[in-house]
Amino acid sequence: MTVESFDGLWTAIEPVGRDGRTGGYRRFAWTGEDATLREWFAGEAAARGLDLVVDRAGNQWAWWGDPDSAGPAGGVVVGSHLDSVPDGGAYDGPLGVVSAFAALDALRAGGFEPGRPIGVVNFVDEEGARFGVACAGSRIITGALDADRARGLRDGDGIAMAEAMARAGHDPAGVGPDPETLRRIGVFVELHVEQGRGLVDLGRPVAVASSIWPHGRWRLDLAGEANHAGTTRLADRRDPMLALASAITAAREAAAARGCVATIGKVRVEPNGVNAIPSAVRAWLDARGPDEPDVRAVVEEVARAAAAGAAEESFTAETIFSVELRDRLAALLGDAPALGTGAGHDAGILAAAGVPTAMLFVRNPTGVSHSPAEHASREDCLAGVAALARVIEDLAGGAG
Amino acid sequence: MTVESFDGLWTAIEPVGRDGRTGGYRRFAWTGEDATLREWFAGEAAARGLDLVVDRAGNQWAWWGDPDSAGPAGGVVVGSHLDSVPDGGAYDGPLGVVSAFAALDALRAGGFEPGRPIGVVNFVDEEGARFGVACAGSRIITGALDADRARGLRDGDGIAMAEAMARAGHDPAGVGPDPETLRRIGVFVELHVEQGRGLVDLGRPVAVASSIWPHGRWRLDLAGEANHAGTTRLADRRDPMLALASAITAAREAAAARGCVATIGKVRVEPNGVNAIPSAVRAWLDARGPDEPDVRAVVEEVARAAAAGAAEESFTAETIFSVELRDRLAALLGDAPALGTGAGHDAGILAAAGVPTAMLFVRNPTGVSHSPAEHASREDCLAGVAALARVIEDLAGGAG
Repeated sequence: MTVESFDGLWTAIEPVGRDGRTGGYRRFAWTGEDATLREWFAGEAAARGLDLVVDRAGNQWAWWGDPDSAGPAGGVVVGSHLDSVPDGGAYDGPLGVVSAFAALDALRAGGFEPGRPIGVVNFVDEEGARFGVACAGSRIITGALDADRARGLRDGDGIAMAEAMARAGHDPAGVGPDPETLRRIGVFVELHVEQGRGLVDLGRPVAVASSIWPHGRWRLDLAGEANHAGTTRLADRRDPMLALASAITAAREAAAARGCVATIGKVRVEPNGVNAIPSAVRAWLDARGPDEPDVRAVVEEVARAAAAGAAEESFTAETIFSVELRDRLAALLGDAPALGTGAGHDAGILAAAGVPTAMLFVRNPTGVSHSPAEHASREDCLAGVAALARVIEDLAGGAG
Repeated sequence: MTVESFDGLWTAIEPVGRDGRTGGYRRFAWTGEDATLREWFAGEAAARGLDLVVDRAGNQWAWWGDPDSAGPAGGVVVGSHLDSVPDGGAYDGPLGVVSAFAALDALRAGGFEPGRPIGVVNFVDEEGARFGVACAGSRIITGALDADRARGLRDGDGIAMAEAMARAGHDPAGVGPDPETLRRIGVFVELHVEQGRGLVDLGRPVAVASSIWPHGRWRLDLAGEANHAGTTRLADRRDPMLALASAITAAREAAAARGCVATIGKVRVEPNGVNAIPSAVRAWLDARGPDEPDVRAVVEEVARAAAAGAAEESFTAETIFSVELRDRLAALLGDAPALGTGAGHDAGILAAAGVPTAMLFVRNPTGVSHSPAEHASREDCLAGVAALARVIEDLAGGAG
């Protein structure tokens, strides 16, 4: 039953937003691909008799049982997100949503009767690939992302998030903190493909998360002066590409010196012509590490090297997941190992907002993610579903 | 008369392809903007009773008199191009075409009767902004750009030049060397805004060209491996941005050491996501200098620094314009100064193909070009028109 359920769910969304050339996914918030995935989510909820609720940010919640019946204890929520980075893999996000539905199917097939409401969530815009702020859906409902700022974020084509939401049929006027939605979450467990090789080294299929490193994104605006590449003397140039080169080099060197990771993965060059000295370069720095002061120091060193300011687009302090919950889940799953991660997640945003939160990681043979090469074996995916079902059974206190 | 003629021509095309935000121009070959400019050219030809001929590459020729009547001596051709770099200025190209029509108007108003056919040309795709090869129109008809290679060049959206031509109504099957068109050009004189401050320093409005530096474009394909920016250890990364940084730095250092100029003005990053280590970076190097071996050495040093091959997309050896013609024009224009340039031009392509060729430069107060700041005063533009009219009058041997 679990096998058929998982395979059916997985197969249904596998082609959505897949690039035929690279094999990677382009599933960006509030696009046509996103709409297809949201319709799929709503359909799966309906097929299971779950009640669909869309919150103020646009996150989708499918409830088994009335979420307001649980009082202050709230329900048990599982799930993840369906959007991707550009050319991302199939597993980052969707594995958690598909596993949530499949775990429910497995529990129901076994005659499980929940003692608390159970919810499946699809967080919108987790990757921030389109509007530049990761975990936008969870940040909006917790108030970590200001509503006006969210509405005004623009994509590469200049389209504001508010406009993109409106086009997709979600009212941007309602965007904002959503305490009612948060109150319903008694506990949140996000299953996610591991983004590293911790489980490979340990020879285990499933782990629980210990913490998320402090991490953030900064924007560097490097000013230049457009001019002809052939006729402008070197001494007369203001070429912002030189500052970009310094920033890239400094990011690597500072991160290595401080035990952090730092990446410039996105740049925008104006006008981006072969024979024109650029008028401006915009580059984004992603920096993370175990200790916040080190991460801040890396950012400062990069900004200094580029002789530019580093505008903070988002920052998330270290998230330490509930130790009690983590230990309970680890024991439940046969002494599952606990792993930290440098990746941000909606689970981290909720944990920072005070929601008891845990994560399960599923083994990734290469450790590669945010790439078409991202992978998890079917066997390990099914082990993840079984683990998630076991966790829900425990937390939702079966009455059967 | 010249004033009204020049102003009318200039004003008609000024808004075409202008970006409201930057004030720069985006007039790329075989686009809607290009079609509008080509229609304008055809209309101006018709209004003057000139015969419009479109050659195999798509260059437009407007003839006063039968170009085949001149025998092996050929006609006198003036003109330039109407396309732009991304966010380019208003003058680079259009000044030469507008001045050509205005010079004809001035000559006719003075009762001039040509002894040879006179042509006005609009070369297509001079900047190579869309398909990556500069002077594509003149290179195709001279055979310097292979027809199949030209047809297969692709723009940033993957559209082949052949397809773009076909959409714009030009038959790509006919693309290729065009000896008949070349035979008609007895002499070519291209008027162009100066891309430097030579005339400012000399206090003169108009110069003749002496030579064009050897110059070319090379493509660097920097390979990486896409992975998560937060979870991939520095030691496990293959980040092509580091190679880009090395290439940018090496380009500046090698050019400075060898008396050349070198520019990386265009890059394409895949997938270009904030939290993804890029899978690949493609960068274009523009290198020029007075001596070809130095230019070649710069390219080699950049490729070595990036640990990548440098694929030559185009290269033009030094062009020394006809000394006899240059001296004749300089004398005609009151001992006009002779200036060299690092910028490539269709005039250089024709000169390399054996066509007697000259250029006139019009003063540019800041020397800036390939930028919205590119400029020439109206007074200097009119001095350019007068100079061009004087040159045509001399070369076309008036019978009146």
